[in-house]
Amino acid sequence: MKRQLEPSNSITPCPAILLSVKGPTRPNIITLAWVANVCSEPPTVVVGIRPKRYSHALVKDAGDFVINIPSADLIDATRLCGTKSGKDIDKFAEAHLTAEPSTKITSPMIKECIINIECKTKQVITLGSHDLFIAEVVAVHMDESVMDKKGEFDAAKAKLFTFLPQTGDYWELGGQILESAPVRKTKTKTRGR
Amino acid sequence: MKRQLEPSNSITPCPAILLSVKGPTRPNIITLAWVANVCSEPPTVVVGIRPKRYSHALVKDAGDFVINIPSADLIDATRLCGTKSGKDIDKFAEAHLTAEPSTKITSPMIKECIINIECKTKQVITLGSHDLFIAEVVAVHMDESVMDKKGEFDAAKAKLFTFLPQTGDYWELGGQILESAPVRKTKTKTRGR
Repeated sequence: MKRQLEPSNSITPCPAILLSVKGPTRPNIITLAWVANVCSEPPTVVVGIRPKRYSHALVKDAGDFVINIPSADLIDATRLCGTKSGKDIDKFAEAHLTAEPSTKITSPMIKECIINIECKTKQVITLGSHDLFIAEVVAVHMDESVMDKKGEFDAAKAKLFTFLPQTGDYWELGGQILESAPVRKTKTKTRGR
Repeated sequence: MKRQLEPSNSITPCPAILLSVKGPTRPNIITLAWVANVCSEPPTVVVGIRPKRYSHALVKDAGDFVINIPSADLIDATRLCGTKSGKDIDKFAEAHLTAEPSTKITSPMIKECIINIECKTKQVITLGSHDLFIAEVVAVHMDESVMDKKGEFDAAKAKLFTFLPQTGDYWELGGQILESAPVRKTKTKTRGR
């Protein structure tokens, strides 16, 4: 049996990313879930940001930003950067994160994240409470600690997590779904990847 | 140590959803990961679809679609609807899924999915390999089997899963991250929700 709810943002689970952007005095970070890959060629992402957020003007002024993928080791930083404003505090300092130069854009990357995605804004669309930034991916960096011996991404090493808008909380990933009947509590280590 | 990779769709993990849409002779389903909530008011989603996909013309012609959230019980249907074309087969029949009427739009919902999000297209933007459909959420339905006693979403009952573009595979969710040091292999049943 289904129940009808008020229209709301119900796609779940969502990515939880740290967006880093340069600023007038210091770089800033904002935790976002309204983000997605949307086009393969050219690789393109979208990001929804409220105009009243401090980072909104920074992203608009910079014309670029970095989408940084945190592992669950950075859950405290993810919560902090999603609840405090960069107007009041230096989030890199407060969250014990390190800004390092990007290779193709002016905004810095977050050194401690496992993946860094350098993005150049192509278009901004006003939607209502949020503006939609459409941006092209111009470079990607991945930490060797989450790669297998062939240099491919090894999700079992990455401690990825996800955001659930219905409850506002973060959930870690369990195991890869190998069978048609999903295996609960799969130990990824035993699969010999 | 980081390695620089070719620019690619690297936001991870992503939602894995079943988009249902009406068609000229029968409704169709397509599995998509290039989707997101992007605006809270009005609740707005985006969906990236390749113009060469059979569903692209259907979504454009219908002017609406449903984003259906599958539980891991529907992993076979998710794989099928992401690899076969609705030009060749009746995906509702092949995947053993049931089309049921939506309340506000013309495209049908998938009865077996735990959440159905009725969407009306507002704008289509050409990006390259994919077109971006920007759509407003006009109704949401949730199955009572994934609700707690108060009628709120209970993720522990939902068997949600996620898609990793780097490896092209699906991963189930583990547990909610409760502590700053993430607890691995949390048994959701023991948390007495």
